[in-house]
Amino acid sequence: MLSEFEIIRQYFSQASPTARLGVGDDAAIISLSPGKELVVSTDTLVSGQHFLADTDPLKLGHKSLAVNLSDMAAMGASPRWAMLAITLPRQLLKENSQWIGEFSKGFYTLAQKHHVALIGGDTTSGPLNICVQIMGEVDHGKALLRSKAQPNDDIWISGSLGDAALVLAHQQQRIQLQSVELEKCLPALLTPIPRIELGQQLINYANSAIDISDGLLADLGHILDCSDVGAIINFNAVACSDILQNYLPHPDVINCLLAGGDDYELCFTASTINRLEIERLSAKLSIQLTRIGKTTAIKGLTVLDSGGNELTQEKKGYEHFYT
Amino acid sequence: MLSEFEIIRQYFSQASPTARLGVGDDAAIISLSPGKELVVSTDTLVSGQHFLADTDPLKLGHKSLAVNLSDMAAMGASPRWAMLAITLPRQLLKENSQWIGEFSKGFYTLAQKHHVALIGGDTTSGPLNICVQIMGEVDHGKALLRSKAQPNDDIWISGSLGDAALVLAHQQQRIQLQSVELEKCLPALLTPIPRIELGQQLINYANSAIDISDGLLADLGHILDCSDVGAIINFNAVACSDILQNYLPHPDVINCLLAGGDDYELCFTASTINRLEIERLSAKLSIQLTRIGKTTAIKGLTVLDSGGNELTQEKKGYEHFYT
Repeated sequence: MLSEFEIIRQYFSQASPTARLGVGDDAAIISLSPGKELVVSTDTLVSGQHFLADTDPLKLGHKSLAVNLSDMAAMGASPRWAMLAITLPRQLLKENSQWIGEFSKGFYTLAQKHHVALIGGDTTSGPLNICVQIMGEVDHGKALLRSKAQPNDDIWISGSLGDAALVLAHQQQRIQLQSVELEKCLPALLTPIPRIELGQQLINYANSAIDISDGLLADLGHILDCSDVGAIINFNAVACSDILQNYLPHPDVINCLLAGGDDYELCFTASTINRLEIERLSAKLSIQLTRIGKTTAIKGLTVLDSGGNELTQEKKGYEHFYT
Repeated sequence: MLSEFEIIRQYFSQASPTARLGVGDDAAIISLSPGKELVVSTDTLVSGQHFLADTDPLKLGHKSLAVNLSDMAAMGASPRWAMLAITLPRQLLKENSQWIGEFSKGFYTLAQKHHVALIGGDTTSGPLNICVQIMGEVDHGKALLRSKAQPNDDIWISGSLGDAALVLAHQQQRIQLQSVELEKCLPALLTPIPRIELGQQLINYANSAIDISDGLLADLGHILDCSDVGAIINFNAVACSDILQNYLPHPDVINCLLAGGDDYELCFTASTINRLEIERLSAKLSIQLTRIGKTTAIKGLTVLDSGGNELTQEKKGYEHFYT
């Protein structure tokens, strides 16, 4: 069986030309470009909690980095460096010698696409746990924060929401998707696309931003809390796939859309005067951007249905320690 | 039971005045001081692997940060910022509501001592897993590397080695310590002291350095591999406690000393012309610094006993994936 050092040597030692010192010492060393600040975040994926134990390791490698890149996107930062602390069951290494190589491939493929260097980490044994830490750069003072939404901002989302949660609802037998539908929705859950370039461009137009990992209502709620504003959302405006649309208004499916999470799309607010520029940006990047409501000076988050009536929503987002 | 956000709010949201933006957004933002590079590392502690499930959470909080600070010490860096990604079993939060508060206290107490700000992290549920990521600063180009040892350097260690492994050997019933001995050795295992100030000072005198986490022979071996040199160590010179000394030459205890690990002392090499300065540094910092051997142009690591004969050593260090 592979030792810790062999695992690192074989699978996690690609050159990291943008670091002064990469994998292989007590720590890595990096220099920031002049005028830049370091933006840093970490996200953990736990087996049985964030993914099934039999998830394709290639896709898991992608997703482990993607959810972290998504945090960089939400700050408008350019991701540059990553560290990977992976806890691996001995059993897994023994029984599936391909696993770690596939995981590494999925991770590096996405990293290279975004010019991110893996500069260090830790390899330990125990229940499968993947902890990635991501570092990026942003022009000094320019990062997109949760706390800068203004009253009367437009609220926007990128892409469409709910497909990842829809797959989960299918897997948990709360709804029943047809196999062709499942196949179309699976990539949303397994290989989300972080909105890196969109985040970087939004620095010029948005007042606030967050990535949607816990569900639209919970994550928009963070913007509202941090910015001391409220919001009114039009349910019918919230973009979703044709497949999800077919299953509305099933209450579980409404939940997938508004509170499911695992979307890794951006939710952002912007002054109404930037509408045209944002629509141009949408066309330029070929990313659907949809206005779903407005912020308000009065606190509280209200979702209106097509008739203008308030939609009640039991569960506003996914939290790891809800009983 | 506490939600993820309540845990962060209650236990992990102390102000971080040295960060532009701390806990509470998609990422944290930091600026480096002029002329400095960022030094970054991560270390994970897994329940049942690195600590027993019933370990005092106050001490575990200390150790989780201490082992990471030790990596900064080995680079000669000043630790500045930390992130904590903690995976907690639901059962633990339900059955021991004090646990997370005690852990947080142990973590912050050590952090404050070294002026380290906790600027972010992630809280998830699953088998207990503590992943800390540490960031520090060092003058550009000045970090202590594993790769800069020269032939004919003195090899030094700080403090004494083996007590942590001795406790483990006792717990695994490979040796039997008296209760007063156990009590004296336990802090080495549970609350190691990272050699931060020593590391910073050694920038002026040492050619290479590493912290001893996997055992003296394994970690010194990394310096030798990276620097393309060999070494001869005098077993009798390797500093140990009086308690460990009493149990020599039991083979398991020799192993504790040379290959036990979990010491978090520094092993460094320095030119012989710096001997006097290093001894002065030892007196100034009240830290025992001991010369244990020399590097050689010829590769290989040899340990000599008091008669000048080679000591054979089956196991040269602890590796997580050894079967």
